[in-house]
Amino acid sequence: GSSKPMKAKAKLVGDIIRKPPIVVNCNITIDEASKILIENNINHLPIVDENNMLIGILTSWDIARAVAQNKKSISEIMTRNIISSTVDEPIDVVARKMSRNNISGVPVVDKNGRVLGVVTAEDLSKLIGMRMKI
Amino acid sequence: GSSKPMKAKAKLVGDIIRKPPIVVNCNITIDEASKILIENNINHLPIVDENNMLIGILTSWDIARAVAQNKKSISEIMTRNIISSTVDEPIDVVARKMSRNNISGVPVVDKNGRVLGVVTAEDLSKLIGMRMKI
Ligand SMILES: C[S@@+](CC[C@H](N)C(=O)[O-])C[C@H]1O[C@@H](n2cnc3c(N)ncnc32)[C@H](O)[C@@H]1O
Repeated sequence: GSSKPMKAKAKLVGDIIRKPPIVVNCNITIDEASKILIENNINHLPIVDENNMLIGILTSWDIARAVAQNKKSISEIMTRNIISSTVDEPIDVVARKMSRNNISGVPVVDKNGRVLGVVTAEDLSKLIGMRMKI
Repeated sequence: GSSKPMKAKAKLVGDIIRKPPIVVNCNITIDEASKILIENNINHLPIVDENNMLIGILTSWDIARAVAQNKKSISEIMTRNIISSTVDEPIDVVARKMSRNNISGVPVVDKNGRVLGVVTAEDLSKLIGMRMKI
C-alpha cells in the first residue's frame, strides 16, 4: 500500500537495462531460436545483421504464432518494424511506448543502431515491486 | 521524469485485472493453445478443470519450450505449481511475487479457486506509463 515509503530512484532506461544482450542472426531456425529463449529464460530476442545492427525482434509469442499458423522460418515470424529505446529514455516514456504498441519489451540501441540490451515489462514491473520512484 | 505529477491511485489487483479471463481445458492440443494465444494477442492461458477450477498455466514461453524440447502435449509443458493472486492483493505485492518467481503473469482466483482474470507484468508496467501512484 501507499503507506510504505518508496525506495531509490530509477529514471532512465540505462539504469535498468539488462545486458549483455542475447541477440541472434536471422539465419537460425525456429527450433534454435526456441532453444535460446528457453536456455536463457527470456521472451525477447533481438535479431541483428552481420554488423550487429538491429533488424528485427522475435518473441516467444512469435514462436506460438509459428505453431498456430504452421510457419517454418524466422523470416516469416520475426517483426521487422521494431520499436526500440535508448539508454537516455525516461522509464515512464518507454512504459507508454510498450503500452501503446501492446508489446512487452523493447531492444535498447545506441546511436548507430547496435543493440545494447533489452528492457521488458517484467523489468518495469519489478520497479513497482521495489517501490521505486520513477 | 519525476517532475510530472502522478495520476490516480491503483492499489489492488482488482483495480487492474483483465477480465473476462480466457481459460482452456487441459485436453486441448499445443496447436489449439497456440491459436488461442495468437487470436487473443496474449501470452498467458490459465488451465481449468471441468469445474472451472485453476489447475495450471500455459504461456507462449511454454510453447517455445515445446518446440525447443520437442514436447507434444499440454500436460508436458503446462505449469502445475501455480502462483496466483486475489483481487484484494496490493499491486506492489503481486509485482514482488512475479519478480521473485521470475514469471510474467499470474491468474487471479476467487476464494474457491475459480479464475477471475489474469494480471501480467505488461499490466503493471502500464501503471508506470500512466504515472499511477501505487
Ligand atoms: C503485439 S505483441 C502481443 C503479445 C504481447 N503483448 C507481447 O508483447 O508479447 C506480439 C508481437 O509484437 C512483436 N514485438 C514485440 N516486441 C516488439 C518491439 N519492441 N518492436 C516491434 N514489435 C515487437 C513481436 O514480434 C510479436 O509479433
